[in-house]
Amino acid sequence: MKRTAFFISDSTGITAEVMGESLLSHFPTVQFERQTLPYVDDEAKANAAVEKINAAALKDGQPPIIFDTLISEALRKIVVASEGFCVDVINTFLAPLEQALGEPSSYNVGRPKVATENRHYSRRIEAIHFALDNDDGGRINRYGDADTILIGVSRSGKTPTCLYLALQFGIFPANYPITEDDLDSMELPKPLRDHRDKLFGLTIRPDRLASIRNERLADSRYASDRQCEMEVSEAIKLFERYKIPYIDTTDFSIEEISTRILAETGIERQFK
Amino acid sequence: MKRTAFFISDSTGITAEVMGESLLSHFPTVQFERQTLPYVDDEAKANAAVEKINAAALKDGQPPIIFDTLISEALRKIVVASEGFCVDVINTFLAPLEQALGEPSSYNVGRPKVATENRHYSRRIEAIHFALDNDDGGRINRYGDADTILIGVSRSGKTPTCLYLALQFGIFPANYPITEDDLDSMELPKPLRDHRDKLFGLTIRPDRLASIRNERLADSRYASDRQCEMEVSEAIKLFERYKIPYIDTTDFSIEEISTRILAETGIERQFK
Repeated sequence: MKRTAFFISDSTGITAEVMGESLLSHFPTVQFERQTLPYVDDEAKANAAVEKINAAALKDGQPPIIFDTLISEALRKIVVASEGFCVDVINTFLAPLEQALGEPSSYNVGRPKVATENRHYSRRIEAIHFALDNDDGGRINRYGDADTILIGVSRSGKTPTCLYLALQFGIFPANYPITEDDLDSMELPKPLRDHRDKLFGLTIRPDRLASIRNERLADSRYASDRQCEMEVSEAIKLFERYKIPYIDTTDFSIEEISTRILAETGIERQFK
Repeated sequence: MKRTAFFISDSTGITAEVMGESLLSHFPTVQFERQTLPYVDDEAKANAAVEKINAAALKDGQPPIIFDTLISEALRKIVVASEGFCVDVINTFLAPLEQALGEPSSYNVGRPKVATENRHYSRRIEAIHFALDNDDGGRINRYGDADTILIGVSRSGKTPTCLYLALQFGIFPANYPITEDDLDSMELPKPLRDHRDKLFGLTIRPDRLASIRNERLADSRYASDRQCEMEVSEAIKLFERYKIPYIDTTDFSIEEISTRILAETGIERQFK
C-alpha cells in the first residue's frame, strides 16, 4: 500500500518531520511517499499546499496524512479543509500542558522565537570548528580541551559522529585514526597516551567496513575483506588491552552512536 | 517560575526532545531545567528515571513535565506512576492514525528499526565527506558534483550550514570564501565563474560578525567593526551584481538557514 505523507510548517518543518517520521515508523507495512513543505506562512502558500495534498489524494486514491505545526489558525483552517488527514502535533498537547503548568501558552500570539537555537549559536559554531580542527588527528595540541577523543580504524564512523556531537550537543570532540602501525605494535598512538580517560573506541563489522571502503577505493587492499577483518579484530584487542570503552557502530545511525557515547561516558550536553 | 522537563526514551531521546522543546517554546514565561534520559530500556533504568523525576518534583515543589516515547507498556507504567506529568507524544496519535491508514500499528510489537536512518547511512557519510573536502574552497575540481556552493565572507556561517545540509539532508554542499581581493575587484572568484547557477550567498549583520570574529581573533583588524562593515556591504554588492540569491543569517539558527536555502533554491532533500 502506498500513501503520501506531508510535513507542513510555517518554519523549518523539522519538528513536523521528526514527529511524523517517528509516528510513521510504527506502520512498517505502509510505504510512504514524503513531502516537506516548510515556510508556509501566507494564504497563497497554504493554498498551494492544499493543491499538492489534493493532487496526492487523487493519485493515491486515499487521503494523504498531514503532520503540521502551523501556528496561524487561519492558515491551519485552509490546510485542514484539504483532502488530507491532519495530525495536529502541537495543539493537541497545549491545553493539557497549560493546565499542568498553570500558565497560558503563547500559542495564538505567534510563532515563538527559537531562542534556544540562537542562544546556542556561538557554542555550536565553536564546537563545529573544534571538531574540524581536531578531525583525523589534525591538531593534537588541543586535546586538553576535548570532551572526548574518538578512535578507530579508517571509516569506522569517527568524523560523522564528531560532527554530530558538535552540531547537536555543542560538545568539543576530537578523533584520531588507528593505523596499521599502531595495530602492529599494539600500542596506543603517542598523542593519545596522556588522554586515556577521554578515549572512546568505534568499531564496525568487517563486511560493512569493506563495503564502505569499497565505495571510496574499489578493489584495493584497503577495502579487502582480509584487511578489514584484520584491522577490526586487532583494533578491538587494542581497545581491550587499554580498557577503552567502545561500541559497534554497524547497526546504528549517527544519532544513536552519538547519544550512546554520551550515555556511556556521562558527558553532559552543552545545550540545556 | 522554574520547572523541570524530562525527555525520556528507550532509544536516542531525539524525538522526545524535538517534540518537547517545540511544545515548551510556547511557554516563554516558564524557565525550564532540562534532563534527557535516553536508553531507558529496562526496569532498573525506569526506576532510576522515576527517582530523578521525584527528586525534581520535591526540589521544584511542582510536578516535572515528562515527554516520553517509551514503547514498552511495562516501563511506561513505571514512569507514569512517578510524580511527573506525562505527555505521551507517540501513543496519543497512534489510534487515529491506525484508523486513517486502515492498518494496525506495530506499536506493541517493539521498537521499530530506524530503517530510514540506516538506509541513508552511506549517503550521509558520502555527503559529509563531500562537504569536508569542499569546505572553504578546498577542492574546486568537484564543483560539478556539488548541489550548491555557499559563498560569503569569513565566519558568515558557511561551514556549519554545509555540514548541516550534508548530515541532515544528504546534499552535496561546497563553500567558498569571499576575500578582500574579490571585494576590491568586485569580480567573482575564478573557480566560481562556471558554476553561477549553484551559488548561494550568506550575509550577516556587521556587529554580529564582529562579535563572532572577536571570539576567534580578539582586537584584530579582521574583527574590527570597520572591517566587518566594509566586507559585509561589499559582499552584498557583489551578490547583487551577479544576481546571486542570498540570505541574512544573523537571526537564524543553522536549521533555519539550511531549510531556507532548500526552499529558495528548490534543491531536493535526498532522504525521502
